[in-house]
Amino acid sequence: METLTKYLVHDKLSPLNSGVGGGTLDGKAMRTIAWDYTHQQIRMIDQRLLPGEFREVSFTSYEQVAEAIQQMVVRGAPAIGAAAAFGMVLAAYASTTSDIKVFKGEMTKAGNALEAARPTAVNLAWAIARMLRVVEQYEIGEIDTLKGEMLEEAQHIADQDVLINKQMATYGANLMGNNETVIHHCNTGALATVDWGTALGVIRMAHDQGKNPHVLVDETRPRLQGARLTAWELEQYQVSYEIITDNSAGFFLNSGKIDRVLVGADRVAANGDVANKIGTYMLALAARDNQVPFFAVVPTSTVDLSLEEGKQIPIEERDPGEVLGIQFLGKRASPETAKARNPAFDITPHRLITGIITENGVVNPPFERNLRQAVLAGRS
Amino acid sequence: METLTKYLVHDKLSPLNSGVGGGTLDGKAMRTIAWDYTHQQIRMIDQRLLPGEFREVSFTSYEQVAEAIQQMVVRGAPAIGAAAAFGMVLAAYASTTSDIKVFKGEMTKAGNALEAARPTAVNLAWAIARMLRVVEQYEIGEIDTLKGEMLEEAQHIADQDVLINKQMATYGANLMGNNETVIHHCNTGALATVDWGTALGVIRMAHDQGKNPHVLVDETRPRLQGARLTAWELEQYQVSYEIITDNSAGFFLNSGKIDRVLVGADRVAANGDVANKIGTYMLALAARDNQVPFFAVVPTSTVDLSLEEGKQIPIEERDPGEVLGIQFLGKRASPETAKARNPAFDITPHRLITGIITENGVVNPPFERNLRQAVLAGRS
Repeated sequence: METLTKYLVHDKLSPLNSGVGGGTLDGKAMRTIAWDYTHQQIRMIDQRLLPGEFREVSFTSYEQVAEAIQQMVVRGAPAIGAAAAFGMVLAAYASTTSDIKVFKGEMTKAGNALEAARPTAVNLAWAIARMLRVVEQYEIGEIDTLKGEMLEEAQHIADQDVLINKQMATYGANLMGNNETVIHHCNTGALATVDWGTALGVIRMAHDQGKNPHVLVDETRPRLQGARLTAWELEQYQVSYEIITDNSAGFFLNSGKIDRVLVGADRVAANGDVANKIGTYMLALAARDNQVPFFAVVPTSTVDLSLEEGKQIPIEERDPGEVLGIQFLGKRASPETAKARNPAFDITPHRLITGIITENGVVNPPFERNLRQAVLAGRS
Repeated sequence: METLTKYLVHDKLSPLNSGVGGGTLDGKAMRTIAWDYTHQQIRMIDQRLLPGEFREVSFTSYEQVAEAIQQMVVRGAPAIGAAAAFGMVLAAYASTTSDIKVFKGEMTKAGNALEAARPTAVNLAWAIARMLRVVEQYEIGEIDTLKGEMLEEAQHIADQDVLINKQMATYGANLMGNNETVIHHCNTGALATVDWGTALGVIRMAHDQGKNPHVLVDETRPRLQGARLTAWELEQYQVSYEIITDNSAGFFLNSGKIDRVLVGADRVAANGDVANKIGTYMLALAARDNQVPFFAVVPTSTVDLSLEEGKQIPIEERDPGEVLGIQFLGKRASPETAKARNPAFDITPHRLITGIITENGVVNPPFERNLRQAVLAGRS
């Protein structure tokens, strides 16, 4: 918290000058994360302050970016992937060496620091690996040229994310009928990505197609990404919604009035097991118990074919204070001496998943075979 | 809220003079609800203020009691049953008529008002019916004598609740081994009853037997009865616990480290379907998916044999403000214009329940037959 206040703060909402300029929020072109070409900084929306305050913050070192990822100034698997990629660019620009070996060592160190910020979302490692590949493949020439190529790669990752999200949104929205009521967990919108969103991007596309979706927004304890960020985005898009407590999703799924559950993912194993925000597993169980289709909306960058099953995915356990800090009638709810546990993600076994929507199409079971095909299709 | 501040407030914690004087909290004999024989008032702990403040409040009219039940100054199926019974006594003492017919009409009116305060917990209707039976059976004699008999009946309901809870606790604790880790939802302790508790009473008994239970306390959104009340009680009893978000119970159940789930109930249908605090259904699904035993701890006064199945139980939907009022970093989390849904209970189908622990023993499936036997056993 303290160091973040030292960052350059932009108090006015201004369009970010980052290329494709995909979606709009509140009528203004913006991205959750973008490279500021004028000042050679990263600019992000501080997601801890929404919806009460919209503030852009700038970052000038990769260490700051790692801290921002850890503290969830920026969150969402695709968004932190892009943040790490641009963080690598900051590390490159901060380097003063003219020795390519020393430079490569510095980049590896920066990559390790960024990757350690959060363990579960594989997009972080995926983006850093892409950046390091550019570095590794560089054999001759000026390091300044390499730095430029790194910026190009990071910008490509960011731009690609927006396009991929729109492809997924199109595949997902095609599955949806008119007037569907959808349960959505956590935040998977423009704020969780560079722009547009994954699961929320599907809902947004359906809305743009005139399909009139209604969203029950899981508030998503403990950090309330649903009540804060998803509700805020849906207000911008003018999509109809109601906030619900996470524990009431089962009640609504049992009511016969829910058509679909849409969630994102932080890492998907080769067998289709999905690591996603804590609570996803219980939501999937309730969907299955009531025969409601359950879809994960997942760019292939989130699929980790190196892991056979979900059990192998590391689950981050965060500060218990995130749970204990909750208030009731203006006072701290729990006793002063209370302890808490705070796992940030859980694993939804593939048997509970109806389909995985990727930028290469909707993947149906058996996921073991079909998911690999979808991922490799994108690489060919 | 406003009218409640008008009630007589006792700032000092004092022993309540109500008879059996079952449990102790913080070394002082107390009951959640008790008749004050000196002032002919009801005294209750204001459960909205815990754990930050321990305050007793007194009630002098049945209308105040109905409001206190609605506003959850007192909550928990057995506790609101006792509150309604004593509320009927207040109605009786407030009556000035000497015409028994007029008096009976007044009592029916008071009973209706108290019963309307909350629809789901059947204990409310059950306790009022018991009180009205005393009134109805009264044919000759002084109305003042009848009023005394009504107080005796209400006191009997309250005293009986404590004894029943201890019987259930003994049956439940006998099922438990040493060093079990238990997930518990909402608050079912001394505060949810006249004293001792139902599901939490089982844990307390196991603790007193030296079995060293550890409790994962579901915080229980939106009103946080777990984080506030159950955590506070467990602090008093010196039982080891950690608070978790409701949506993370599935993660822990899947970890292989949970031995048992224990919950209370607000109404149980004849087939064993359980209406309980919102989130119980998803918790039961996660327990079943991981073969963890799931028990409801239920006095037979909570069983409604007139309803065949859970679908027939009315589910209270409370003020959306209870969901929307949640704060993040000191500010309201959701957008100012956000809407919410707030069902207060859900139905857990009997197929997900391992056993129902009553004061007449542990009821196993098939519940259709065995639950009726257990209920009628108590009436013979």
